[in-house]
Order: sequence, then structure tokens, then C-alpha cells
Amino acid sequence: MTVLLAFGTVARAQDPLPSWNDGATKTSITDFVGKVTREGSADFVPPAERIAVFDNDGTLWCEQPMYFQFLFALDRVKALAPQHPEWKEKEPFVSLLKGDLKAALAGGEKAMLEIVMATHAGVSTEEFNAIVREWMKTAHHPKYKRPYDTCIYQPMVELLAYLRANGFKTFIVSGGGVEFMRPWTEQAYGIPPEQVVGSSGVVKFEMKDGIPPAAVLMKEPKVEFIDDGPGKPVGINRFIGRRPVMAFGNSDGDLQMLQYTTAGGPAADGSKSPRFALIVHHTDGEREFAYDRTSHIGKLDKALDAARSNGWTVVNMKDDWKVIFPDGQVRSGTAGTGAGAGAGR
Amino acid sequence: MTVLLAFGTVARAQDPLPSWNDGATKTSITDFVGKVTREGSADFVPPAERIAVFDNDGTLWCEQPMYFQFLFALDRVKALAPQHPEWKEKEPFVSLLKGDLKAALAGGEKAMLEIVMATHAGVSTEEFNAIVREWMKTAHHPKYKRPYDTCIYQPMVELLAYLRANGFKTFIVSGGGVEFMRPWTEQAYGIPPEQVVGSSGVVKFEMKDGIPPAAVLMKEPKVEFIDDGPGKPVGINRFIGRRPVMAFGNSDGDLQMLQYTTAGGPAADGSKSPRFALIVHHTDGEREFAYDRTSHIGKLDKALDAARSNGWTVVNMKDDWKVIFPDGQVRSGTAGTGAGAGAGR
Repeated sequence: MTVLLAFGTVARAQDPLPSWNDGATKTSITDFVGKVTREGSADFVPPAERIAVFDNDGTLWCEQPMYFQFLFALDRVKALAPQHPEWKEKEPFVSLLKGDLKAALAGGEKAMLEIVMATHAGVSTEEFNAIVREWMKTAHHPKYKRPYDTCIYQPMVELLAYLRANGFKTFIVSGGGVEFMRPWTEQAYGIPPEQVVGSSGVVKFEMKDGIPPAAVLMKEPKVEFIDDGPGKPVGINRFIGRRPVMAFGNSDGDLQMLQYTTAGGPAADGSKSPRFALIVHHTDGEREFAYDRTSHIGKLDKALDAARSNGWTVVNMKDDWKVIFPDGQVRSGTAGTGAGAGAGR
Repeated sequence: MTVLLAFGTVARAQDPLPSWNDGATKTSITDFVGKVTREGSADFVPPAERIAVFDNDGTLWCEQPMYFQFLFALDRVKALAPQHPEWKEKEPFVSLLKGDLKAALAGGEKAMLEIVMATHAGVSTEEFNAIVREWMKTAHHPKYKRPYDTCIYQPMVELLAYLRANGFKTFIVSGGGVEFMRPWTEQAYGIPPEQVVGSSGVVKFEMKDGIPPAAVLMKEPKVEFIDDGPGKPVGINRFIGRRPVMAFGNSDGDLQMLQYTTAGGPAADGSKSPRFALIVHHTDGEREFAYDRTSHIGKLDKALDAARSNGWTVVNMKDDWKVIFPDGQVRSGTAGTGAGAGAGR
């Protein structure tokens, strides 16, 4: 398998998506990949143009009970509190340090932004990278009691590998912070830092004294770019410079990315090539979390309607996925057509 | 050779840099690449971390008698004039349309910016891409009488291929506009759009009526990011997210990129890996253009001093390069140690 992957050859002898139940969802993916990679097919897409973009929160990893990056920020508030005596008298920090998250977030988006800025600035990009790595090693998800970077969706990890084996270049395009994702996405998903597009804060170049002097980028408490909603196609254009062939999301924040991918204007050469869009619908309250139209996190409303009217693939997590996380938690789907099919075929 | 490249194997049997005269410059490159790619070497750099960044104007292609993108903008002013009757009474356009470039540029940077904004906005990213492609097919360099995308440096094209054959991922990091470069860099240099970092204008996502409706990004007349000087390390961090191992430039606008690459803070894992920086010094007034400390375009002053004090490699174009452009113009160096060495060894 490793050899096949390395040579970019399609590995069809074995099921490349063993954690997906058989059925229309899985078939929509494999049919599409089959036709765009078959030389001579009318829908053939040259390897250089095979760009696939994935949202992260709720699409590649869990986003409940709260965005993991925000949980990271809360842990950082506690760690940094001794250096910030002024937080004892300043909201939202007072409430946070008392453990009263609800009161802390009474300030809404402004309070959240303040928490993120206070915990994501004042260090160099390399220092921040090390802080994130350390947190990933030590912090655990409140429900699953495991490191956050293992709360990733095994079926999506297989899908990423399957697409790369078929000549696709896989990118993350997330509302999450780019500096928060890059330290661990390569190990978790096989996606290197240079293929991670995300929101970002301003950084400033500085030469620091020393022997020899060091050239660093310092993180400032100022938002530079929000890679969400209409910002996602903007981020794709800015970082990738090609219209994707496939796009994967799970919430209304992904709507414009899916529209940009599928409702393409003409390609540079005037041609119209096939496009694919998929939405992960969180329907499994038992193994994971069930939420959609009214959720505060990962709200899926307009994009679900758009999926239906445009014929995009909608993953029903409960029925389509045999496994949620990498180490198992296998469960036969209760309604899936492929229920009970063995893993590893 | 194709097979060797495809498998990422080092092709050492033949000289991989046939357009470079033998000597200290060439050796500094091949020695460095040799040591960072030799497994077991103390200086070994894993393939995933082999990032090489290249300035474009004056480093990969010619930038005289003026940045090519500005020459493109001037051609666009002429093409767009019929749609802009107001330009007949408005500087810098009045002077431009009369052919008086000097008067047009009397307004300095503000005038230049106005010209670029007027010619780089109001169209979708895909329409702009097509305009650039068409210009590359039809416009010719005033001195060389050939398409601009063939006024690229053959020795640097070989260097790019050599680095890729040694597992490096090659990126452009240029002050030039990213949307102006991406349409042609893949064919010219083998660098795909997603590995081009540059200055950019604001773009806005729009759904356009039609059957089916089209989702496009419209270019607005507003600067978003200037990827020059201290902006280059910022751009590298934003787009690539790793500190490069090798950096190549030719002017003071590249100084901070070279500093960021070589005067590294600690790597994420605390280690200190070897770094390489190179400056292309334009010393060949006969085959190309000779300029440095006092040039308006591609000024090389502080960075030349920094190169000397830091031991960076400085390419003496006149002596180090057998050939300037892809189709020949071969000339034996008059002072190079490898003068007269045959191409293709």
C-alpha cells in the first residue's frame, strides 16, 4: 500500500474507504474520483488541477462541546494568569478564572475575540508552535478523554489518503487559526503546513539581539484575516490560486466555499470541468454529537438546503460511518445499507 | 531523467547545472544540497522541511528596463483607454496615453499605484488570468524582442529543477502581484500556482446571475498585502508556515527574507538546521543589465553588504552563468574559472 501510494497509483484492489458503509454516499465519492482520474474520460482532470479543500472543525475533527481552539485559549488563560494580575479585575478573564464560562461569554463575540487575542499574541510564531504542540500532548477532550488531535474522523482521514493516492493535493481551508493548526495537521491528516489555509493574526518581522542575532516573527494581538464564509473562497484564491475540484464542509461557514467550487465560472481555458461538494451532517448523538440548524457551533442550515437543491453529497454520520475516531468505536449502522459490513475489506 | 526526477532520486551522473560555470558559486550550492540530503549527515534535513524560496523579479527573470508587471499595466492602460474617456484629462493617464512615461511617473509611487490599480481591478480573477495569458503570448520585451515569460534565467531554471530533484519544494516569494505570476509560473519554472507567494489586491466573493449562477471573485482596486522587504518573511509564514532552508534573491527587498531564512530562531524542535542564502548580482551589462547600489529598480546595497558579512553566496552573473536565457546566448565568461566549459556535461 505504501508503495502504491508513493507511485500515485490507484489502489483499487482493496477498499480504500473501509470505515465508510457501502451505499450512495460512498459511491458518489468513488464514482466521481473514478471519472475525473480516468484518462480519456470526458471528465478527466489533469493531476495538477486536482485540488481538494477541506474545512477542519466539524469536517475533519470534532468541534463539540466547543471549538477546540477556544478550549486551548481557555487553558492558556489559566496558564498565563500569573503574568497578568490585571485579569483579576477585568472581564472576561475574571469570570473565566473563576470557572464561570457562561458569565465570561456574556460579552459575546467581543469577549471571545479578547480571549483569543490575549492568548495568541506576544510570542514568536515558533514559540507559539511549541505551545500548541505541548497542549496537544497534554490536554484531553472532556467527553472522549483523549488528546484533541486524536478526535479526528477516521473516515475522513481515509478519504484524504484516498484522494492523494488518486493524484489530488489536499488542503485545509478552515475558520480556525492557521498557526494553531499547522503544528499537528501533518501528523494527523498528512497535510503539511503549506497546505493549511486558515484565519490569521498579524505578525511582525523583528531582528532580536544575540550571537548570532535571531530573525523572528512576533505575533500581535490583531486579526489579519478571517477565513470563514465568503472569506473561504478568498482564502482559496489567495493561498491556492486555483478553483478546487472537490470541497468538503459541514456548516454554513462552508457554504461559499462549496458554491465557489461547484458553481464555477469558466476555467482559465474556457472549459467547464466536473466538481464535487460534500457536507458532513452530524446526526450521531450517541457516538458523537447531533446538531444542525439551530446549533451555536457548526450551524448547518442554509448549506443543508443548498446541498439538497444542488445535489451535493450529504454524509449521514450515523449511517454512513462505521467508525468515528481512529482507534475504533466501531458500530454497525442502524439504518445504513451497508450495516454490518466488515472493516478492512 | 524523467523517471529519476519522478522518483525524487538525485541525478548526479550528469551535471545538473550545465549553465553554471564551475567555481566557488556553483560549488557552494552543490555542497550545501549534498550535505542536507545525505542521510546520516549531521546536517541532514528531512524532505518535508526542504523549503526553498525564490524572489522573482531580477532573480528568476529579468526586471529591466522596468518591472514587467508595470509594462503589462502600461499596455493595459492603452487597451482600456476607450472605456475610460475620463483618462484624457486625468494624470498619470493623460501623459501615459501621449507616450510620455517620464511625465506620467512624475507623480512617483502614487502614480504607479494608480496605474496598477486601474488595470488590475474590475474583473474576476479568472478574467484577469486570461488577460495575463494573452499578454504573455503577444507582448515582447523591448530589448530582447521575445515574450516576457521567456526572459527567464536558464541557470535558475536548472537550479529549481535540481532542488526539486533533491526533494526540495520550490516557492516564489515576490513583491510582484500573485495574480500576475500564477498564470505562467508553472510552465516557465515548474512552480504551480499554490507555490507562488506575492503581493495581492483585495478580491470579493460574488454570486453572478445566470443559468447556472456563477460564483466568482472580483478584483477590487485596493491593496491587500505587499510582499516585499519585511513583508517577505510575513508572506512566507502566512503561506508556507515553515522557515525556509534556502533563499534566493537579488535586491534589498529580499534582505529580510534572507535574514529570516539564515538567522533562524530555534526550529520547532529546538534544533538548528543549516541554511543557505544566495544573491544574484547583475554584473553583465552586455548580455543583460548591470546595476546594483544606485539602481531605481532592483537596488542592491544593504543586502550586498549583508551577503559579504554573513558569507552568503553572491552570483556574479557575468562570470558564473554561461547562458542567460533558455535558448542560448551562450558566452564564455571572461573571468570565470570555468570559462569555456561545455554545456551539457
